[in-house]
Formats: sequence, structure tokens, C-alpha cells
Amino acid sequence: MPDMEFASLVELVREKKPLVHHITNYVTVNDCANITLAIGASPIMADALEEAADIAEISASVVLNMGTLNTRTIESMVAAGKSANAAGIPVVFDPVGAGASSLRNSAVDRIMREVRVAVLRGNASEIRHISGMQANTRGVDAADSDQAGGVEAAGSMARALARKLNCVVAVTGPVDAVSDGKRTVFIKAGHPSMSGITGTGCMCSSLVGSFCGACPEKPLEATVAALLSMGVAGELAFEEAGRQGSGSLRVAILDAISKMDADTLIRKGRYHEA
Amino acid sequence: MPDMEFASLVELVREKKPLVHHITNYVTVNDCANITLAIGASPIMADALEEAADIAEISASVVLNMGTLNTRTIESMVAAGKSANAAGIPVVFDPVGAGASSLRNSAVDRIMREVRVAVLRGNASEIRHISGMQANTRGVDAADSDQAGGVEAAGSMARALARKLNCVVAVTGPVDAVSDGKRTVFIKAGHPSMSGITGTGCMCSSLVGSFCGACPEKPLEATVAALLSMGVAGELAFEEAGRQGSGSLRVAILDAISKMDADTLIRKGRYHEA
Amino acid sequence: MPDMEFASLVELVREKKPLVHHITNYVTVNDCANITLAIGASPIMADALEEAADIAEISASVVLNMGTLNTRTIESMVAAGKSANAAGIPVVFDPVGAGASSLRNSAVDRIMREVRVAVLRGNASEIRHISGMQANTRGVDAADSDQAGGVEAAGSMARALARKLNCVVAVTGPVDAVSDGKRTVFIKAGHPSMSGITGTGCMCSSLVGSFCGACPEKPLEATVAALLSMGVAGELAFEEAGRQGSGSLRVAILDAISKMDADTLIRKGRYHEA
Repeated sequence: MPDMEFASLVELVREKKPLVHHITNYVTVNDCANITLAIGASPIMADALEEAADIAEISASVVLNMGTLNTRTIESMVAAGKSANAAGIPVVFDPVGAGASSLRNSAVDRIMREVRVAVLRGNASEIRHISGMQANTRGVDAADSDQAGGVEAAGSMARALARKLNCVVAVTGPVDAVSDGKRTVFIKAGHPSMSGITGTGCMCSSLVGSFCGACPEKPLEATVAALLSMGVAGELAFEEAGRQGSGSLRVAILDAISKMDADTLIRKGRYHEA
Repeated sequence: MPDMEFASLVELVREKKPLVHHITNYVTVNDCANITLAIGASPIMADALEEAADIAEISASVVLNMGTLNTRTIESMVAAGKSANAAGIPVVFDPVGAGASSLRNSAVDRIMREVRVAVLRGNASEIRHISGMQANTRGVDAADSDQAGGVEAAGSMARALARKLNCVVAVTGPVDAVSDGKRTVFIKAGHPSMSGITGTGCMCSSLVGSFCGACPEKPLEATVAALLSMGVAGELAFEEAGRQGSGSLRVAILDAISKMDADTLIRKGRYHEA
Repeated sequence: MPDMEFASLVELVREKKPLVHHITNYVTVNDCANITLAIGASPIMADALEEAADIAEISASVVLNMGTLNTRTIESMVAAGKSANAAGIPVVFDPVGAGASSLRNSAVDRIMREVRVAVLRGNASEIRHISGMQANTRGVDAADSDQAGGVEAAGSMARALARKLNCVVAVTGPVDAVSDGKRTVFIKAGHPSMSGITGTGCMCSSLVGSFCGACPEKPLEATVAALLSMGVAGELAFEEAGRQGSGSLRVAILDAISKMDADTLIRKGRYHEA
């Protein structure tokens, strides 16, 4: 049963409880910590240069998220990333706002050059920018025009960039596309109302880190499982609390992730491979 | 119908989706981002000096909130403020804890001197301090004695300071007073239980930034609409969840803002002009 | 009635509304601010070296939490701690992740050497590390093996360290042990599901700071009352929302603290003295 390829990984995260080191932004860091716990992993947030490498070394995976980066934390991200590479644990990179400022653009360049990234996850504008395509980045949210090509454009872009960078690339949006350059998986899950709360992208990256920490040898499968989990949680949350508003929706997403299991993913997760 | 002057601005925010750049504190930043999204605007938080000016330039408004300021972020606030001034977009300043330390007092002086502020929003203690009056600042909350003069004192203070600084001044509390030096509007909305959750002041400033981003040419009207929205949301939230406690109240405020519309504001918003 | 010794302190916090200065991490800082308000105290978060001492001086207690420490904030913690010592107000220290990196270990050494701590609160791994015992610190959560000795081991460790450091030591876990070297109190409260949300330890420390701010002359009693409040809130929250998931549980904990009173503590709080 092919579905189990991804769905069973939820149980693996809960069993292994991987320690996931985050160097992330201060806007959504609490949501990232809570969703990491909710899926069964264990978060640690530590961004001082003096300990970034030490903490990465004892972790099962590292998530680098540049939402509120500064010159101090860029150094810490590079140090944590290199330490993770040396220890053989996967690095997940979330290039928040790539394209929005030259500081962000140079940070992306440096991290991609100095750190071997296992999974790159961003929205269409961010991944377009990294692919060297014209992007209409508007702050930290994807521009509508950058999603114009729809799911096919996202899939082609993910596949091409995955081949070029030799890593898994995930473009998230109304439909997510995940590729390792060979396989490309499309995930149709989630609900438009999720864009009304901050941090859904960051939380996706934390889930990718959690799944990668539990099965580092399968970054594509881990990423698909993470995005399926978030998408299904968004749908369940909307059914539960969507009518109440965005505060309740946010609470309900965390609730749904904390109860996520393989059965739910099999029953509700919609994806196909191209 | 005079009510529409303020109420219709909610629809304008949802239509224009202004990008609101925040340099703000790490205590309530997540609430600020979520409330900005909930009212229909788009938040970006970026405090590195190396990008503060760049990000301000692509935004529709800038919110400077000194809740957890430090020497690094003070420079970024000045840079973002000057960039906003050059680009002709409004700057909203929230002088959190003005009067509580000499670092805060000197930051207020510097920002007011180097940046042209469109809207200054604070509690009675903070605004008293900036007005050069004796203030009994106690941390980040207004001292009871500083609110002793009631609504009339707040209105006079707002009007006088607005004339002196040539900007809109909003003093928020049990009754809010907003003045541009000519018109002074009093808003009687909200619920005392709101003071039991952190960030209601910061969230007000983010709403002011959202409304100013949508109608930069009308800072007084934008500020009144923002404070009316927050007050009405607090009342609706208290009706919905006040009995449950402060955690539920906080969620319900975000819910109410995410469903706020002109009709609700007209039906529930109480204010008068003096 | 012996129960009143601890339970009555809740009313004291609500009456005195102590200002609690926090230098804490950016992961759970919003929860810390909200729980401080919920129990009736007033939080202020200020970590700039230039104001740390000034803010400590106007506060009723200081909470130092090293969850996301860096070289800048370590200096601020020392300055705030010394200022609190000079002003005669209690310092609560939460050595998050002690044992996890040499930066954290040296920060613990320095703070314990330069600041007179009134209450040290940590999990079994952290307190083992500070006691000079072998600890299997795994990130910021206690290792199962470090809790193997159970409640008796925790009590002995708290008592011995309290005598050595001449302060109150609290080891929190499934059963909490609090000792000032003479009296040792065990608290059996809370629910296992609380470990599924981030910040329950940090929130405990904020409650300890709130109670210590209200009755600085009784640090043992204040600490017991704080941990009883958190434990009982966790139980009430689980009854209310445990079935819904971890997002709802988190909201319900805050709700329960905001409604906590002496009666509830007497009715639900289970503890014994050894």
C-alpha cells in the first residue's frame, strides 16, 4: 500500500522523538517549538554562535529559518549548518523573504555555498528567487504572480532546482511540490484560511526537520510526510474552528498535529506523483 | 452617515492588503503579526540595520515599537523611520515603557527628533512622559494615577501634544483619545479584562499601522478606525470567551478581528468627537 | 489549617500586583508575560545591558531564564541580578539547558557566582548538572534516566543543593521537590500532557517570580505556591481541553491560572512535607 510510504513516518517521529535544533525567527518561534512537540519530536532553539555548533552536534536535525536574520545569527546558522554536515545530520533551510533585501539574498548565497542542505523549503517567490528566475517577492508572502504557473510550474521549478543543488526542494502553496530531482510529489492539502495566520510556512519547516530527524536517509519521503501532515491538520482545523476565526484556527492546527497519526494521513492526505 | 467615515476603512485594509513593516519587541511580535493578518494587511518583521531601510522602502507603513529595544535595534528603528520618511509612507511609533529607564527615554528623544512620526500611540504614562509632564511609569503598564484626570485630561493631553509634534497622538486606556491637534475623537470601546493579556497595546499599534498603510493620507481617521476595531473586538471576545479566562480571551480577540467588518464597527463602535 | 500557608499567597499576588522583571528567552516569552498577568502580577521584559539594572531596581522580583542566552544577554542577566541583590529583591534563576553546551555551563557558573539567587528552579537534568552529578541532558528537556531515582532522589538533591547554595532549590518533574535545606516539600500535581507544550517550565519560573515578588521574605512558601498553581492549572486544563489536543491545552492552562484562587488550590493541590 503506497500510502504507507509517507504515513508511517508519523509513527516513526513519535517513536524516535528526534531532537530538532532550530535557529529561527522570533516571530513564529513559539509556534515552531509547539508544533515540533506536537508531532512528537523535541525542539531546542539556540542561536548564540558560541553554542550553535555544540547544540547541532547533539541534535538529530537542524532547521535554519531566516525570518528575522541579522549579522550575528547568520554566522550562527553557518556554524550550526557546518556542524550538522560534519555530524552527518540533515539540514533544513527555510529562506524566508529571499528576494526582499540584499541582506537576505547574500545570506541565502552564503548558506547555500557553505552548508550542504538536505531540504530547501520555501514559497513560490522565494524558490523562484533562488532558481535565478524573476521573482516578485512582496515581504515574506508569495506574490500571486509568482504562483501563476500553478502546480506544473512549481513542479518543474522544484525538480530543476533539486537537480541543480542536489537536494530536496519543496515549493509550498495551494498545491505543494516536492522533488529530489528524480521523484516529484504533489500534495493537495490544506485550506486557504491558513494564509490568514502567521507561521504556517515556518511550522512546515519545523515539521520537515522533525521528520528528517526521524528518518534522515529519506529526505524526500520525510518532506512529503511533513507537508501532508500540515495540510491535513489545516483541513481538520478548518472543519473544527474555521468559522470562529483565525485565533481559533491557529489553536486547532496545533491540536490536529498533536493527534496526527498514520490512519488520519492515509484517510485524508491527497497527493500524487508525476 | 458619519459612522462610515471610520468604519469603511476596514474594507479598505482588506482590499489593499498593505505591507506593514514592524521593528518590534519579541514578547508580543507573534500577536502583532497575527492581528495584522487578521485585519487583512500583511506583516513583515525585520530588524537588522542592514535591511531595515530596504524593507521599509517596499512597505506601505512602518511600526516602531520599543518594547524590548536595545542599542542595535534603536539604530534599525531610526534607519527604517528615515527610509519611510523618504518614501513618503507613514510611521507609527509606540514608545513602550517611556519613562521607565534612561535608555528608553533617550531612544524616544532620538526617534522623535530624527524621524517624522505620523501617529504616536501610547498609554497615559508614556504620553505624559513625552509631554514633559510628571509620569508615574510603572514598567510597561499605565499607572492608575496617570489616568486620574480621566477622559478629559487624556483628550487635552493628546490635543496639546499633537499640536506640538504636528502628528496624530493617541492615548489609549479605558477611553481612548485621538487627536491631530484640530479634531479630537474619544473612543469608548473595549473591556477591562483586556488588560489581563499582554500585547493589547502593541496589537493596537499594529492595527494603526495596518489602517495607515491602507489610507496614509488620513492618519487621524485610520487611527480611530484601528482603535475602534480593537475595542469592539475586545467586547465581542469578552462576550464569547471572557468567562473562560485570559487564554481564551486572547484567542477570541484574534477571532473577532479576523471577522471585523464595517457593519460590525457601525453597530458596536461607540465614539464621539469633542 | 496548614493548606492556607501556601494557598493564601495567590490572593497576595493579586493584591500586590508585583512588577516582575524578566530576562528570558524569545521562545516562550509571550507565555511568560501572559501567565504573569494571569496570576495577577505585572511583567516587564527588558534585556538591554543599558537598562537591565534600572528596570530591576523598580521591580519586585527578577527572573533570569537562559533558554536562548547569548553573550550580550548573559551580561544583562548579571547586571540585573546584581541590581536586584543591591535593592534586596529576590532573583529567580532558571538554568534552561544547563549541561547542553559549554556556553550554558559557563553562564550558570558565572550567574551563581556573581548573583545571590533566591530560588533556583530547573528540571532533574539541569539540577543534577549544577549539583555536580552526572547528567544526561538532552536539549532542554529532562532525560528519563535523570529522573530514575524518582521523588526521593529529587528531594535529596534539592535539599543538598539548597544547603550548599543557601537558597531555595526546586526540581520540577512528575513530582516537584522544593527545599530550602530545612523544609522539603513535594508537590504531586500536573498532568503528563503538559510536557507536550513548550514553556511549562519557563512559566513555572515566571509564577515563582510572581509569588516571590509578592512575598519576598518567604521564598520556599512562594515557590511551593507557584508550583502548586501550575500543577493544579495543568490538571484543570487537561479536564477541560486535554482531549482536544495540545493547542487547546495551552490555552486552557492560561485560563485556569487567570481564575486560580486560594479555594481551588486548597481543594485540588496535593503536596506533602518530608
